[in-house]
Amino acid sequence: MNEKNFKLAAALICEGHILQAEQSRHQREQLVTNLLAHRRLPVDGWDEDSIELFLRELSLMDSNNFAGAAGVGEREGRIWSSIVARRHFGLGHGVGRSGDIAAEQPKAAGSSLLQKLANYLALDALRIAGIKRCASCIVVPLATGMALSLVFTAMRQQRPAARYILWPRVDQKTCLKSILTSGCEPLVVQNVLSGDELHTDVDEMERLIGVHGADAIVCVVSTTSVFAPRAPDKVVEVAALCARLQIPHVVNNAYGVQASKTTHQLNEAMRVGRLDVFVQSTDKNFMVPVGGAVIASHDAKIVERIGGLYPGRASASAVLDLFVTLLQMGSSGYEQLLAQRKTSYLYLKGQLDAVASKHGERVLLTPSNPISLGMTLSSFDRASVTELGSMLFTRHVSGARVVNGTATSTIGTLQFAGYGAHCNQYPVPYMTAAAAIGLSKEEIDTFIQRLDKTIDEFRKRQLKPVESQE
Amino acid sequence: MNEKNFKLAAALICEGHILQAEQSRHQREQLVTNLLAHRRLPVDGWDEDSIELFLRELSLMDSNNFAGAAGVGEREGRIWSSIVARRHFGLGHGVGRSGDIAAEQPKAAGSSLLQKLANYLALDALRIAGIKRCASCIVVPLATGMALSLVFTAMRQQRPAARYILWPRVDQKTCLKSILTSGCEPLVVQNVLSGDELHTDVDEMERLIGVHGADAIVCVVSTTSVFAPRAPDKVVEVAALCARLQIPHVVNNAYGVQASKTTHQLNEAMRVGRLDVFVQSTDKNFMVPVGGAVIASHDAKIVERIGGLYPGRASASAVLDLFVTLLQMGSSGYEQLLAQRKTSYLYLKGQLDAVASKHGERVLLTPSNPISLGMTLSSFDRASVTELGSMLFTRHVSGARVVNGTATSTIGTLQFAGYGAHCNQYPVPYMTAAAAIGLSKEEIDTFIQRLDKTIDEFRKRQLKPVESQE
Amino acid sequence: MNEKNFKLAAALICEGHILQAEQSRHQREQLVTNLLAHRRLPVDGWDEDSIELFLRELSLMDSNNFAGAAGVGEREGRIWSSIVARRHFGLGHGVGRSGDIAAEQPKAAGSSLLQKLANYLALDALRIAGIKRCASCIVVPLATGMALSLVFTAMRQQRPAARYILWPRVDQKTCLKSILTSGCEPLVVQNVLSGDELHTDVDEMERLIGVHGADAIVCVVSTTSVFAPRAPDKVVEVAALCARLQIPHVVNNAYGVQASKTTHQLNEAMRVGRLDVFVQSTDKNFMVPVGGAVIASHDAKIVERIGGLYPGRASASAVLDLFVTLLQMGSSGYEQLLAQRKTSYLYLKGQLDAVASKHGERVLLTPSNPISLGMTLSSFDRASVTELGSMLFTRHVSGARVVNGTATSTIGTLQFAGYGAHCNQYPVPYMTAAAAIGLSKEEIDTFIQRLDKTIDEFRKRQLKPVESQE
Amino acid sequence: MNEKNFKLAAALICEGHILQAEQSRHQREQLVTNLLAHRRLPVDGWDEDSIELFLRELSLMDSNNFAGAAGVGEREGRIWSSIVARRHFGLGHGVGRSGDIAAEQPKAAGSSLLQKLANYLALDALRIAGIKRCASCIVVPLATGMALSLVFTAMRQQRPAARYILWPRVDQKTCLKSILTSGCEPLVVQNVLSGDELHTDVDEMERLIGVHGADAIVCVVSTTSVFAPRAPDKVVEVAALCARLQIPHVVNNAYGVQASKTTHQLNEAMRVGRLDVFVQSTDKNFMVPVGGAVIASHDAKIVERIGGLYPGRASASAVLDLFVTLLQMGSSGYEQLLAQRKTSYLYLKGQLDAVASKHGERVLLTPSNPISLGMTLSSFDRASVTELGSMLFTRHVSGARVVNGTATSTIGTLQFAGYGAHCNQYPVPYMTAAAAIGLSKEEIDTFIQRLDKTIDEFRKRQLKPVESQE
Repeated sequence: MNEKNFKLAAALICEGHILQAEQSRHQREQLVTNLLAHRRLPVDGWDEDSIELFLRELSLMDSNNFAGAAGVGEREGRIWSSIVARRHFGLGHGVGRSGDIAAEQPKAAGSSLLQKLANYLALDALRIAGIKRCASCIVVPLATGMALSLVFTAMRQQRPAARYILWPRVDQKTCLKSILTSGCEPLVVQNVLSGDELHTDVDEMERLIGVHGADAIVCVVSTTSVFAPRAPDKVVEVAALCARLQIPHVVNNAYGVQASKTTHQLNEAMRVGRLDVFVQSTDKNFMVPVGGAVIASHDAKIVERIGGLYPGRASASAVLDLFVTLLQMGSSGYEQLLAQRKTSYLYLKGQLDAVASKHGERVLLTPSNPISLGMTLSSFDRASVTELGSMLFTRHVSGARVVNGTATSTIGTLQFAGYGAHCNQYPVPYMTAAAAIGLSKEEIDTFIQRLDKTIDEFRKRQLKPVESQE
Repeated sequence: MNEKNFKLAAALICEGHILQAEQSRHQREQLVTNLLAHRRLPVDGWDEDSIELFLRELSLMDSNNFAGAAGVGEREGRIWSSIVARRHFGLGHGVGRSGDIAAEQPKAAGSSLLQKLANYLALDALRIAGIKRCASCIVVPLATGMALSLVFTAMRQQRPAARYILWPRVDQKTCLKSILTSGCEPLVVQNVLSGDELHTDVDEMERLIGVHGADAIVCVVSTTSVFAPRAPDKVVEVAALCARLQIPHVVNNAYGVQASKTTHQLNEAMRVGRLDVFVQSTDKNFMVPVGGAVIASHDAKIVERIGGLYPGRASASAVLDLFVTLLQMGSSGYEQLLAQRKTSYLYLKGQLDAVASKHGERVLLTPSNPISLGMTLSSFDRASVTELGSMLFTRHVSGARVVNGTATSTIGTLQFAGYGAHCNQYPVPYMTAAAAIGLSKEEIDTFIQRLDKTIDEFRKRQLKPVESQE
Repeated sequence: MNEKNFKLAAALICEGHILQAEQSRHQREQLVTNLLAHRRLPVDGWDEDSIELFLRELSLMDSNNFAGAAGVGEREGRIWSSIVARRHFGLGHGVGRSGDIAAEQPKAAGSSLLQKLANYLALDALRIAGIKRCASCIVVPLATGMALSLVFTAMRQQRPAARYILWPRVDQKTCLKSILTSGCEPLVVQNVLSGDELHTDVDEMERLIGVHGADAIVCVVSTTSVFAPRAPDKVVEVAALCARLQIPHVVNNAYGVQASKTTHQLNEAMRVGRLDVFVQSTDKNFMVPVGGAVIASHDAKIVERIGGLYPGRASASAVLDLFVTLLQMGSSGYEQLLAQRKTSYLYLKGQLDAVASKHGERVLLTPSNPISLGMTLSSFDRASVTELGSMLFTRHVSGARVVNGTATSTIGTLQFAGYGAHCNQYPVPYMTAAAAIGLSKEEIDTFIQRLDKTIDEFRKRQLKPVESQE
Repeated sequence: MNEKNFKLAAALICEGHILQAEQSRHQREQLVTNLLAHRRLPVDGWDEDSIELFLRELSLMDSNNFAGAAGVGEREGRIWSSIVARRHFGLGHGVGRSGDIAAEQPKAAGSSLLQKLANYLALDALRIAGIKRCASCIVVPLATGMALSLVFTAMRQQRPAARYILWPRVDQKTCLKSILTSGCEPLVVQNVLSGDELHTDVDEMERLIGVHGADAIVCVVSTTSVFAPRAPDKVVEVAALCARLQIPHVVNNAYGVQASKTTHQLNEAMRVGRLDVFVQSTDKNFMVPVGGAVIASHDAKIVERIGGLYPGRASASAVLDLFVTLLQMGSSGYEQLLAQRKTSYLYLKGQLDAVASKHGERVLLTPSNPISLGMTLSSFDRASVTELGSMLFTRHVSGARVVNGTATSTIGTLQFAGYGAHCNQYPVPYMTAAAAIGLSKEEIDTFIQRLDKTIDEFRKRQLKPVESQE
């Protein structure tokens, strides 16, 4: 409704009421003005209607939605299915152009604007979360693994003589596969045990670089979001090493944005050392469906170079999801979620402590890990302990991992002993649970109750009562 | 509504009516039964309601939608935004697992089922389109370029000693960037002019292989969907060569599924020679938003290997879009769209002929190209002819490309003369227009009218009437 | 997106593309301008997106959707359920005020505007359908029966001394109950048989008026949409009689808008005689869910008076449905539907003729009825013939009525012999079928096939073959 | 997904995961089972997905959604517009049949089931709210006024000799118009002032009945939801009187369900006296869009008789809205809303007290009114005080009523002095504000701030400072 239409409406409806409606309309448009001018999360999240209205406005800016347009190209953003058209708000062109995923599309001004704004909002969210030194980022419609692979490929192109990626061991397959997909060769750095916790062996890292020569190293990859009892990598120390030896440093920060301890260390790493790029998942940090990642850096040019490497166009879906979510959350909503997560972590730890001691176990001491917790399963038969995991899963507890520490695994040409435990021989079998963003108190209570009961059942199955263990 | 609930309903509503309703419910469930049992496109497309009902059923099969579930992992498929949840029908887990994009997710039986069914429907669609020898395919949430890159990476891993990809020149950046992203080196094969048409130089291809040695070649990449006046690559001859020299053969079939001439040649290539993998875009062939590709082969193991290379999870969005679209089209709807496209091509050609001769130009003779058409722009100043393209674009004609044939372009380290025209020196400047799937007669008429008018305006601007050119 | 916001967007996206998008935005707004200025159906129907965008704009004009509003009344248009809010596009205030259903609501400028526009569009649709003399109408959220009741109440208030409503018999309960609900007393006028057809007995009507005195008559109610073999009432002759005797004349035109024969007679009735108000169903004529009616007249004051009688507010749902439907149809779409219905009628008649003669029956000759057709069931046992109706219903044929003409029915204090057949003794049992708006050729074919088969089955059940009937 | 389909799915997906999904599916179906078996609000509200899934299931039970159905009636529930179809979940048949709004439709088992369940849920909600003696109710798609009119018509039919309705004065037009629309004559009972509060004059009521004779009285109508300073009618005393004199008693309980003080009095009235029917608005009590009412009684037969009076079918929209809302709220959600409203009332009263005393005014003492509050405006010029209302409205405060007590109004043939104040001469001008269900603390704060500020501005305009009034 533009001014002219409000005037026409006033011929049908009392002018005073129309004026008031027009006033209210301007307030809505002011929301858009603020977004376009400040390019930051609104303090208060937008309501559903305002968001959907804005998405339709963006959609009307794309050529496939121009009235009376004729499209004689091979790709015209036509959407055949009414269901599909609705779920994408009529946005069909995806993001990017042949040469560059961050490039603007002439046929799709609305989609292009959406992407730019999504990048700005993601940047603001990273800063709110604590990574103040972040200067630029891009939301890519690739999950973390593929996004890391893209980053490694870009790194390798900058250092054509290099072939190795130095990687402190984390027992999760994705990052390792990302290295392989990018055509690089991983050099595994084993962790060192300190108390219950597994730490980055920075000395071993330096030794390995010495062996192969700094020029042969594409980059070092640290991981900041890991399952207990592993600690997040010592990114500040690694960054210092990388600065000294002039080696690129990439951080796999998959779900680390949600923990202020982690974000502050990333910030510090950029201040005192070298940290080129850090990659985070959109689904794990912002509760959207799987499919996106944010590639970020203190240096806009690095981000630009990575975007420019992407061959062809890509889906706008993950970009849209993040954009909508951040707009609906607002900064106050996002901050509240971050604060709740901290509270949840403490509550989960307390409850886990209680249930552990009831069953003669204990929570592993992993003060460096702000998200994941481990509980020993020492009183059970090590070989059969994984059955407890299956039992929990069939009781609708998902995400609890039981690790016996005796499995071996082969990924590519690499062999790992004690797979799952991030080291060859972890002293005890254990179970992990994480306090991720969005976890509710009710879920924790449900988990603890079921865990308590399942441990009892499991013990009965094992015919190995607590008392007999002494 | 299960049997028990229908019985309870019969206590409230006349039993006869409930019986009839139950009967009708069974008919709907029979649709699902047929889909699960035959795994092919239904003959008649499903209505919107049946599709949305089924999507919600699938969604309820994922653990994030289990009532009373407790999720203590780092990734639990939580969807924070109501808008986002709705547009994904509550499906949050994406597709694939850390190790394999085609792998089933324990937490997400519904999403996994969706993906399997989408692959089956895509396979059926490829066969309906004419590629009968296709044995297996996978829908990946990557646009064509990134999908090709993934294929090249897989090929390279199979032939670690090789580094070159043989690539008959096509003046579109994506494929070339895919080669570069995969870390391979392109060997460009220039095309040969035959009449107006540009053809694959198979002899030159063999010569180049001889120079570098077959073992140094990762694969040959043919392209089947191209802008006139280039002809689709001679995939049958290339396949024969690849079979003889034992070199893998990949086809970039971006939007070739929609043309039976192309699909039959792919089929023939598999029958008489070697064609390992062919990749096609979901948006260009099936009118969904940008973001997906179908990687297909005559050999299920090849597809499996490529899927297994993918690091981590991926978005389910493109998979969902294709699934919904094919289910809503049905085979009869899809066949009708294919037939309409053929008719549109002939209609466009006829109309273009007319407008060309009116303005002293002619349609280029490119009988091998079943989709794209070219019209000479000989009567205009070659240097300024691209302005006509801009004029058309501002008049809401999208997709018409004006090529003067004198541009140069650098991609990576490669330089191309006459960029846009697929050869160093194309004799005339020209404009292209394509009859892609979904193009309507109304759009063709609008295009032709605007073209006619715009040529007149452009000539006036040039102050250079036809007669004065001699 | 207002001008200011487009300017801000141009700082993010190439200005040329933004300009083009803005241009396209203006085209959309022009649609709204046309609607507000001309208040008629657009020639081409609006697309879904444009309609939903406009509904949201209207919704934002209502006070419950003002940002930062404080509502301390007893009714503030709050919508608690997200599902409910979405299905009403946030419109919560309904239509009308305490005193008048057509009155504007200060709190709800958007809802009020919606209602006014819906009335204009309905008026335009009635005129397109042929009732050119219609001067004013109001869409009420009451189905036909309740709307008629409201009209009768208004009529009675104008003639406080009167108590009778003269009503040519139609065997459908609603209108009769409307008369009773309004507190009036019906005077039934039996129909006369002429060939197969049942006609209005205008002479008997005049006689009855003579008996009771014109002043005792609240109004005469004619019915124009009826099941064969009844003909629509002779509205032109009745109108002439009413004009002569100065008695109000109301027409129950439930589903008569769809037949040009009927609309032209209504028009003629207004030209030559007295026709005060005619009432039509929104669902039957415009394919929306049940719940609305259009109360129309040649005189705006009559419509206004009826609206002013309505106590309190009412649902906006039926108004919204009609508004959306007419906007989406456009006049060209609506005209096409009217033309298709005529074709369907002829096709249904032809097919019914064929199936009737195959089974030794015939189609009743009812040339005055443009919608409903009857087929004799003379060759069956009259008492059991209704079973055929049940058989058809269980075979998913709905709407076919089998009438044996021997039933009796009591409504209020009135008794009817031969109920269902509109007269005490119709010569033969029969079945009816109607060619209503929206009926497809496929449905007719399905109906005829099932009818053919069901008659065979029914005959077998009766053990009474055709030949034995002689 | 029935058992068979789950089995087929297990051929595609690991059987264990399918089993778990099937289990979860059964949990959902158990929700439906509970609803159909117990016909009460679930304790915990259903989530959106479960509700929408169930609505689609219901929709598939209606004949217009049967696959392969042929409809040859005049009304087949076709929905032309895709937007309209979606917002009604494909439900097109409305509720009721020609003869009875509560009757089941053979063509629409799903819609019929929806209506029955909605009635049960409404009954449960009324009981939860405190009206335990309520035995039956029906949700009608008519707002309160029209619903009351229907009730009065039914009452009148039972007492054909009667013509008067006894009505204690309430200054809101709807009820009075309802009486007029039903063809009855209102007898106004003036209220008596007691302190600040206006009370029912039960003695005058008895006197008036004596004057006209009990047989001449159709019914007495009490009103329980009123603006302060009027108190809700003394329904218990009136019920006792009606029992004694054998006169039907109807209560206009428009928005009284939300106040336990009111519901308990209704309950008591049924226990000790005569209360035939009570009518309440769906929008005001349950936060759905305007358009529905619940007609309830201690006697199922009375409700049935009223339903049977309704001529023809009606919209299902209001029924659907209430059904969805109650299902989504659950009893715990509803109870919480009721509790919050009580808290809001106290908070509003406290804040109003503060702002009143700041400006030299006071809150009227109306302890009998549990929802509405009045604040004196004694320090202002009585004639111009209504301007304050307009000022508040333009500052986005809606629902605050300013009453100067000097207006006169004519409704039908009745004249009212002091209109708005429920009596001919209320001592002071005042403003009202209500704590209705759904009012948030934020809104109260906003209201109080704006009120405070607006009073200041208004006083400046009047140039009449507080001190000068003495």
